Amino acid sequence: MAGETVITVVGNLTSDPELRYTQGGLAVANFTIASTPRTFDRAANDWKDGEALFLRASVWREFAEHVAGSLTKGSRVVATGRLRQRSYETKEGEKRTSIELEIDEIGPSLRYATASVTRAAGGARQGGGQVGGPSGGNDEPWAASAPAQPAAGAGADVWNTPGNFSDDTPF
Amino acid sequence: MAGETVITVVGNLTSDPELRYTQGGLAVANFTIASTPRTFDRAANDWKDGEALFLRASVWREFAEHVAGSLTKGSRVVATGRLRQRSYETKEGEKRTSIELEIDEIGPSLRYATASVTRAAGGARQGGGQVGGPSGGNDEPWAASAPAQPAAGAGADVWNTPGNFSDDTPF
Amino acid sequence: MAGETVITVVGNLTSDPELRYTQGGLAVANFTIASTPRTFDRAANDWKDGEALFLRASVWREFAEHVAGSLTKGSRVVATGRLRQRSYETKEGEKRTSIELEIDEIGPSLRYATASVTRAAGGARQGGGQVGGPSGGNDEPWAASAPAQPAAGAGADVWNTPGNFSDDTPF
Amino acid sequence: MAGETVITVVGNLTSDPELRYTQGGLAVANFTIASTPRTFDRAANDWKDGEALFLRASVWREFAEHVAGSLTKGSRVVATGRLRQRSYETKEGEKRTSIELEIDEIGPSLRYATASVTRAAGGARQGGGQVGGPSGGNDEPWAASAPAQPAAGAGADVWNTPGNFSDDTPF
Repeated sequence: MAGETVITVVGNLTSDPELRYTQGGLAVANFTIASTPRTFDRAANDWKDGEALFLRASVWREFAEHVAGSLTKGSRVVATGRLRQRSYETKEGEKRTSIELEIDEIGPSLRYATASVTRAAGGARQGGGQVGGPSGGNDEPWAASAPAQPAAGAGADVWNTPGNFSDDTPF
Repeated sequence: MAGETVITVVGNLTSDPELRYTQGGLAVANFTIASTPRTFDRAANDWKDGEALFLRASVWREFAEHVAGSLTKGSRVVATGRLRQRSYETKEGEKRTSIELEIDEIGPSLRYATASVTRAAGGARQGGGQVGGPSGGNDEPWAASAPAQPAAGAGADVWNTPGNFSDDTPF
Repeated sequence: MAGETVITVVGNLTSDPELRYTQGGLAVANFTIASTPRTFDRAANDWKDGEALFLRASVWREFAEHVAGSLTKGSRVVATGRLRQRSYETKEGEKRTSIELEIDEIGPSLRYATASVTRAAGGARQGGGQVGGPSGGNDEPWAASAPAQPAAGAGADVWNTPGNFSDDTPF
Repeated sequence: MAGETVITVVGNLTSDPELRYTQGGLAVANFTIASTPRTFDRAANDWKDGEALFLRASVWREFAEHVAGSLTKGSRVVATGRLRQRSYETKEGEKRTSIELEIDEIGPSLRYATASVTRAAGGARQGGGQVGGPSGGNDEPWAASAPAQPAAGAGADVWNTPGNFSDDTPF
């Protein structure tokens, strides 16, 4: 992709990420980032919160599972990605558009927190800058629940399988 | 600050962060982020690595301690901050300039890893968007070692005290 | 302001900027930037257009008059500013939100065009990085038309007065 | 390219752009952008200038000719591109690196100026987001002067000559 609108957002998750699977077994996590700017009030000689920006975000594949396994409601994150516009129709037949963030990279902010990081097994490629979405995965219909047959490569990744985080995950 | 040059970098730490303290007891962590772009080679129909960008970065206060306690050599991070230019003189009296990144937010990328996040005790402010450096802390002379009297608020935070990571950190 | 969501957009104006004045005589220009990314189609070995992002933008004061006097429908621009979310209610009483760009800097892109630049009289400050909106000007009710008493500093600026662009502008 | 470090800079040209041609007839313009942040001084209740960032920038092909024909020393610009690191050796055999901006889009800022824009003939593609450098053009040795045989398409470049450039400018 070239000429995309790249953006970096710092904010807090308004709820836990929702992890779902497409019928093809592709994982996707959706969540909202609330970013609250602060203004310096000269009269009061103090900072006060401005109006928050709420940005709906999505992340795909193993990356989605990492996000769902690492972030929760309230987590402060730093995220970078590309703004995407979606057109849709309401039940009443009204046309609407929404702007969303397709995430390229996201991590928990270390400004007010520490993190213990575990490299993912298998796809643990650390170098380089792979960027980009699921090439049409957006169009896949949603599976009602997690697939019986997990996505290729997610097999042995016990830690990033939704549903059993609490049992045997090492963190 | 207004009119600063804001930048977001995704890359890997070339070594563990160096944590130091100013004589005033202010923590600062320094490290280098290597960001490697990838080009699509049409002839080979494959991606290949481009030339890396190495960016020297600094982060201050408790935030510095969080970084030093969470990231290590090779960690893939997403960082946003402001480009700063520094002028200095070599031992030979030659004038040089270097460009550095003063970090506003940084976190471990979840693209190829998971993270277990622990909110910092005390200053654990999650909302809002506090941004900005140490207001002149840059000018403080360096202490030869960690201060006997640690910075306010860092007292009981065993986990972010340099030197004893390997012994008793909870992660 | 600190912690705002900064963004840079490259795209084309979908129509001429609309220049209006608040009852207080403050100028504001509104317009939409359409940004079209391009994907490399490996099968076809060629680039093809992706789905456009349409971003509503606003710019204030003399700056607004400069924009209205310089850009027209189709102009390719490079713009940087801050994402803002606005909540509003439709006539039917439905609550909606929209995301808009409050512009800090904008200029005609020189990629496919040249420009003859004229420094503005009066406020022609060239250095520094003044950034920021009108401090509440957003809340001012709209004047039905251009004010009889023009905004301070706009007096002799014939070229940036809306309404007579076509007649006697020197460019 | 994927995973590149994208940056937007607002500042002023420290001198006129230098336009040169490679031996292959490819145009390139080089210049430096000085970006000066401003800090709000609470004590003085006023803004004061911070330390400037000087960023060396390059732009290629017809785009370079547009820049050289439109911008001059002091021009305030808004530019977006990718940070690139270059390694080189001094005459004394010392290894150095420099960070430069390879520009994707640049335009004169309309904050304190107006602009009369002329679409370039021929390549006047307005839509889309073509981005990217000259694919190795960086490696071409420099011609001592403008090529006798101008680059394809640059021949009849009447179109980007605003006013009377054609008399004494070398392009």
